[in-house]
Amino acid sequence: MAPDYVHGYDPRESIRLQDQASTLVDLLHSDTSFSAGSRVLEAGCGVGAQTITLARNSPSAQITAIDISETSLAEAQKRISAAGISNVKFQQANIFDLPFAEASFEHVFVCFVLEHLSDPVAALTCLKKLVKPGGTITVIEGDHGSVCFHPESAAAHKAIDCQILLQARAGGNACVGRELYPLLTSAGYRNCRVSPRMVYVDASRPDFVDGFIKNTFTAMIEGVREKALQSELIDAETFDAGIRDLYRTAQPDGVFCYTFFKAVAEV
Amino acid sequence: MAPDYVHGYDPRESIRLQDQASTLVDLLHSDTSFSAGSRVLEAGCGVGAQTITLARNSPSAQITAIDISETSLAEAQKRISAAGISNVKFQQANIFDLPFAEASFEHVFVCFVLEHLSDPVAALTCLKKLVKPGGTITVIEGDHGSVCFHPESAAAHKAIDCQILLQARAGGNACVGRELYPLLTSAGYRNCRVSPRMVYVDASRPDFVDGFIKNTFTAMIEGVREKALQSELIDAETFDAGIRDLYRTAQPDGVFCYTFFKAVAEV
Repeated sequence: MAPDYVHGYDPRESIRLQDQASTLVDLLHSDTSFSAGSRVLEAGCGVGAQTITLARNSPSAQITAIDISETSLAEAQKRISAAGISNVKFQQANIFDLPFAEASFEHVFVCFVLEHLSDPVAALTCLKKLVKPGGTITVIEGDHGSVCFHPESAAAHKAIDCQILLQARAGGNACVGRELYPLLTSAGYRNCRVSPRMVYVDASRPDFVDGFIKNTFTAMIEGVREKALQSELIDAETFDAGIRDLYRTAQPDGVFCYTFFKAVAEV
Repeated sequence: MAPDYVHGYDPRESIRLQDQASTLVDLLHSDTSFSAGSRVLEAGCGVGAQTITLARNSPSAQITAIDISETSLAEAQKRISAAGISNVKFQQANIFDLPFAEASFEHVFVCFVLEHLSDPVAALTCLKKLVKPGGTITVIEGDHGSVCFHPESAAAHKAIDCQILLQARAGGNACVGRELYPLLTSAGYRNCRVSPRMVYVDASRPDFVDGFIKNTFTAMIEGVREKALQSELIDAETFDAGIRDLYRTAQPDGVFCYTFFKAVAEV
């Protein structure tokens, strides 16, 4: 789930959204730091949204970030340069056919990638070969099935289910977060430890109300409206009621919960 | 959700289940401790399952534990005496008609009680009068709607929904956990802070696999089978498939998540 922020015009609004992003970044990434000189592969870096944090938290590690899309890599390179970060090397590559020798890295980092793959175990198996014995893999994924909110709404769950079903039809899995332990274990990794990271939002956290409930999660579900209607997964009335009910959870008496899962396993 | 452990014959099994119980106790209670001399009301202590932990974590607080049931109180008194705890006084009382003067306590503690009440805000409002200004309330509740597992199963969700519906028909709310912030705020409490406490279980935590997935959660859902069938909420085949699928999540490649919510607010 790539955050897709709607930036406000007000500079204070912009600062507020940055604060929110920082809080989410802390929740997911603050406990990942690789030692000086260690070689780290980020597999599936996309436009570099996570790469900046990864590089900042491990300033003396040598990071290689790959993605299948040249366009995304160009954007990632631009962001990293703008952030003044110099310990990341980008390279175009397919996660299933990686141009690196066995045991080339001490650590592999994978964030919001498995959700798009039809065979995540195969990808994890390919990555495992690149890690030196004693090295680790770190995986972070969301799980749209973990969503829980108040007031409850059947229509909202149906709208979310459209996103889950469309992602499944595209060969992905929007609920892959909960599966990290069995996936990593199947791929032969050892000592897998999973920790859930719940984003819990109520009115006492106004930054998350806008930044997460409205501009990240609900905006993402809203984004599949046309496809869902075209595919006849749902009728317009139910979908629109579901979206209204998701925004309703952002009212002062509403609550919204979403869980990311983070796993670290050994090779 | 009262844990209902099936104790094994093997002393090692018994120790293991105690360890599991301790881990859950830590997750929910380890950050609750009241200072020496402070007067604490536990409202709805039942058979004292939480009272022992509360008293142990606040050994010099003066705890008054009330419940509406004399039978439960007798059992609670027996447990507390057996545990050698002396800072708890039990008293029979109705949470909506409490025999205490206003501002009699510094702190109120409520655990697994709101889920049984048809008007939780009214109960919280009654309790608020008993707390001195500057005092606090601590509330802990589960949420059956927060359940998330692998492999996914529509039948298992339908079986869980039977329990949720039956509890609603009895005037309760098995999904009350997520509502703590709006409930406490509606009742006039200030500075409410909610923290979710997820029990995440995979094969790396065999104690929780038995103690939580099988003997606590699934056993509880299994317990509503006859009522659910009599009420024609579900057919026997679907219910039994749902229970099988819940036990299935306890296999080595399964995952199970359940979230408790804990709130602390000020008076």
